[in-house]
Amino acid sequence: MRTTPAPPSTTRSRPGAVERARLALRLLAAGDRPEAWIAVREEAELLAEAEALDARLAAGETLPLAGLVCGVKDNIDVAGLPTTAGCPGYAYRPERDAPAVARLRAAGALVVGKTSLDQFATGLVGTRSPYGAVRSAGDPERVSGGSSSGSAVAVALGVVDFALGTDTAGSGRVPAAFQGIVGVKPTLGLVPTAGVVPAARSFDCVTVLAPTVSLAQRVAGVLADGPVGADGRPWPADAPLAAPPVPVVAVPEPAGLTALDADWLAAFEAAVRRLEALGVTVRKVDIGPFLAAAELLYGGAFAAERYAAVGAFLDDPATGRAPGVDPSVRSVITAAGRLPAHRYAADLATLRELRHAALSRLAGCDALLLPTAPEHPTLAEVAADPIGVNSRLGVFTNFVNLLDLSAVAVPAGEVAGGPFGVTVIARAFADRVAGDLALLLTGEPAEPVDPAGPGPLGPPGLPLVVFGAHLSGEPLNHQLTSVGGRLLGPVRTAPEYRMVALPGEPARPGLLRVAPGAPGHALGGELWALPPAALGPFLAGLPAPLALGRVLLADGREVTGFLCEPHAAAAAPDISEHGDWRGYQAATRG
Amino acid sequence: MRTTPAPPSTTRSRPGAVERARLALRLLAAGDRPEAWIAVREEAELLAEAEALDARLAAGETLPLAGLVCGVKDNIDVAGLPTTAGCPGYAYRPERDAPAVARLRAAGALVVGKTSLDQFATGLVGTRSPYGAVRSAGDPERVSGGSSSGSAVAVALGVVDFALGTDTAGSGRVPAAFQGIVGVKPTLGLVPTAGVVPAARSFDCVTVLAPTVSLAQRVAGVLADGPVGADGRPWPADAPLAAPPVPVVAVPEPAGLTALDADWLAAFEAAVRRLEALGVTVRKVDIGPFLAAAELLYGGAFAAERYAAVGAFLDDPATGRAPGVDPSVRSVITAAGRLPAHRYAADLATLRELRHAALSRLAGCDALLLPTAPEHPTLAEVAADPIGVNSRLGVFTNFVNLLDLSAVAVPAGEVAGGPFGVTVIARAFADRVAGDLALLLTGEPAEPVDPAGPGPLGPPGLPLVVFGAHLSGEPLNHQLTSVGGRLLGPVRTAPEYRMVALPGEPARPGLLRVAPGAPGHALGGELWALPPAALGPFLAGLPAPLALGRVLLADGREVTGFLCEPHAAAAAPDISEHGDWRGYQAATRG
Repeated sequence: MRTTPAPPSTTRSRPGAVERARLALRLLAAGDRPEAWIAVREEAELLAEAEALDARLAAGETLPLAGLVCGVKDNIDVAGLPTTAGCPGYAYRPERDAPAVARLRAAGALVVGKTSLDQFATGLVGTRSPYGAVRSAGDPERVSGGSSSGSAVAVALGVVDFALGTDTAGSGRVPAAFQGIVGVKPTLGLVPTAGVVPAARSFDCVTVLAPTVSLAQRVAGVLADGPVGADGRPWPADAPLAAPPVPVVAVPEPAGLTALDADWLAAFEAAVRRLEALGVTVRKVDIGPFLAAAELLYGGAFAAERYAAVGAFLDDPATGRAPGVDPSVRSVITAAGRLPAHRYAADLATLRELRHAALSRLAGCDALLLPTAPEHPTLAEVAADPIGVNSRLGVFTNFVNLLDLSAVAVPAGEVAGGPFGVTVIARAFADRVAGDLALLLTGEPAEPVDPAGPGPLGPPGLPLVVFGAHLSGEPLNHQLTSVGGRLLGPVRTAPEYRMVALPGEPARPGLLRVAPGAPGHALGGELWALPPAALGPFLAGLPAPLALGRVLLADGREVTGFLCEPHAAAAAPDISEHGDWRGYQAATRG
Repeated sequence: MRTTPAPPSTTRSRPGAVERARLALRLLAAGDRPEAWIAVREEAELLAEAEALDARLAAGETLPLAGLVCGVKDNIDVAGLPTTAGCPGYAYRPERDAPAVARLRAAGALVVGKTSLDQFATGLVGTRSPYGAVRSAGDPERVSGGSSSGSAVAVALGVVDFALGTDTAGSGRVPAAFQGIVGVKPTLGLVPTAGVVPAARSFDCVTVLAPTVSLAQRVAGVLADGPVGADGRPWPADAPLAAPPVPVVAVPEPAGLTALDADWLAAFEAAVRRLEALGVTVRKVDIGPFLAAAELLYGGAFAAERYAAVGAFLDDPATGRAPGVDPSVRSVITAAGRLPAHRYAADLATLRELRHAALSRLAGCDALLLPTAPEHPTLAEVAADPIGVNSRLGVFTNFVNLLDLSAVAVPAGEVAGGPFGVTVIARAFADRVAGDLALLLTGEPAEPVDPAGPGPLGPPGLPLVVFGAHLSGEPLNHQLTSVGGRLLGPVRTAPEYRMVALPGEPARPGLLRVAPGAPGHALGGELWALPPAALGPFLAGLPAPLALGRVLLADGREVTGFLCEPHAAAAAPDISEHGDWRGYQAATRG
């Protein structure tokens, strides 16, 4: 029998930090999921930190995550609390916060404590822990999913506003699906992994679990906002800022969905139909290379990454045979210690080929939509076959980090009375594309972003103000959307411009700044953000007499925008009185 | 006793293909290095291909490598000839050319035959082959270096105009140094490795050996000109197009040069002084992370890459114990078969840290200059200690592919009566920066490039014509050079422009196109090429009233260039009569 989890807290109303921290401790104590937490901070210490934060806010400071409380998966260092990675014998006391945690705290978030996980983040079930099998937030008979089990349950029960997870094979996405919440798995290298107990260092990722896409994206934006470390990768200059107006989403051909029973298949098909109803173009593709890569994660030599991380600990009889070591975890990892290096090398070569094949399948598509997990097992099913059930759960998640992709897991209706989840998978550094599609699927409005913060996870863009054929819906708008440009909104120039109608096709206006003292108009346009690398080719394709220069906006900002050379304006009719290009077009059409 | 190799053929005079092919066969037969070749094409077949080529050229076709003859290292497929990889028992007959070879042939080059190599490209000595130890072109007592031994010797003796090598640990650079020629090792992924017998697939690279930097760069440009395959990587949009006017080159602190004896150290220091005399800023850096990575190539688990490539062949008693298998090669590769995968995973993590540390050492520097090899051993020295001498030779080359860098090896004077070589090492995709510094070191003029070809190895750029403060030597020129911009040369506009002197600092001109029929001037400027990603930020930093638009040049081309908004030009003095900004400045200064 399923129970209804507490509604996720919203961040709109923003209680004070002290109030929110007290609520977290109350919900944590009142809830029936103590196994979700490995360590909770001392109340006095937590409230003192909350008071200090409230004082800073009262003094006028603005912090993007101020007043939000969070949990941190217990394989990520938080100063003052032990890091156990789900294994008491492995525990150590870190001297400082992991950089990811430090960024959250600097943004005003309060860490309530450390959450449970499958030991050494090795599992997708949430049961592989001496601290207790974590039960699903909505159904105590079923598993929470893992390895970020406690983080997902703490968010689903509203104890915390969000939580950090980690994700190598699906650990940040499967528990999101089983709790009916959101899991954002950024592109590898965007969020620092220093201070995180490695699971498979080449493929580890810090993730966010939250009730909404917009909050998860905002937290992820904070996590990625800072210097790039040794394992880090900066945003490339051509990373897209948005999904296009009519996205194309790949979904599997039937042969790719044989892991689903009839109910789960129906739930997925319903999600696909919803996407189509929202105006998305859906295209069936062969996901063979993705599934082959998924098998490579555990069927090949990459499991040796886990031995490199904690194999010495598990192979040492003094530590590896101590109570508290999970037998499934030990067997998986120590077996990987016997794999040969030449197989790792061969698997790397195979993986490069699979990546090429997988990306070829996505040609012309903005993202791939998949069920996040193929089933939701009970605790009893996992106990009966701990390795087999765990393996099955990763069929749609295992390949994502191997193939260097980004992903957002979102709730998508129900299956058999419980939550059903899908994952939007996009290319590396197309995190914002995945985020836009996730927002579309959940039907969330884009939450207003705190100007003090870095904004939702995504690359930086350069502004461009357009006035004519590049406006939304106009003939050349695709030149902005096809390179990942993002509409920021309508703008108006300072009242120092005039607009002419240029001859030729497509019809275009020309904008000119008037001489000092001469009468001018405030003219309407749209402000877009473009990937920095997109402006060069855009400029190279610009026909005379158009040019790009500084445009002074009514609010005093000066941004890059379309201008017109004067030699062509002399003979062109002045259309300034219409206020903008659409006004002129409406007048001339009518 | 050293003999003088034949002077390298130049490509300036361009004999006909038939004539050049005949010369190649004559020089090959007359020279005393038959061991450099494993297979030579049938004369009749070669000459027929040459005749067909000459006919195409006579008919007016232009091909960037027309009339040049080349050798191909015998681990790269050439249709019609066996690929042996230096091991007769391994030989197979490929059905088609490797893509790299196909691109050369499509560009008009003639393949004379297949050149010798250290077996399975495993060696830096050139002696590990049943086809015979390859003797240095200039000194028969000394080794040619390897593994691209035959290719280097064939080029040095003038038999061919250039040759293909491969390079994992230094195989395309060490033999260049020992023959006194040039070796271009592109960034991994620019040249397809399909149709190449893998040595270590994660770190293999096809290279060019040639007598001059400019020819080697031109051939490399042809090799990289085509679709990117499964292992390939496209040029990123911010790849630099040129070294800056005053390059900063890192050289090792003394602790990094302990592998050199006094003579070799003196030769290197002379090369550094020459670089300084050429106007380069030299900065001493700690190359510890580079040397640590070099040790990781064979001291760690990456050697298992070689086992993954040919281990099954060598471990099979039927094939691995057959005559013709080199005992050093077999021992190195089969030992690597016993390495554990977790060590490979751990080495990958170490390598990521070393890469971060190494790139940090290069901060503020455009390149790193190193001796290519630390010594030039005799055949006898290698025979006495085949593994030890080979290991020593890679100290300055082993790390380059591991750390994902580009390199150009060039001759740099003499040491102990023989050739001495240095290597310019640049970041990934900064191949053109390494090339510019290599040209500077050899004192070559940049050879005129055949307009039919893709040009020297380097990324695509976007044109920008500048007229004022961005001209060479003017205050804002660094905005072009610091992002890797390349000066293409002076240009003049169509006679339809006027120029004004804008107020403010720095002093800048404004260019405006005149109205149709109005009197105008042809004004002078400079045409630059910029990395596509650089134009966006450049545009974002442009102050009003400047803008970028189309500028019509005197030769009819329309390119992106600086324009000026008319509102600011009204009150500014017209300076068109001076012809260009420098003319105006000279007039007002005087």
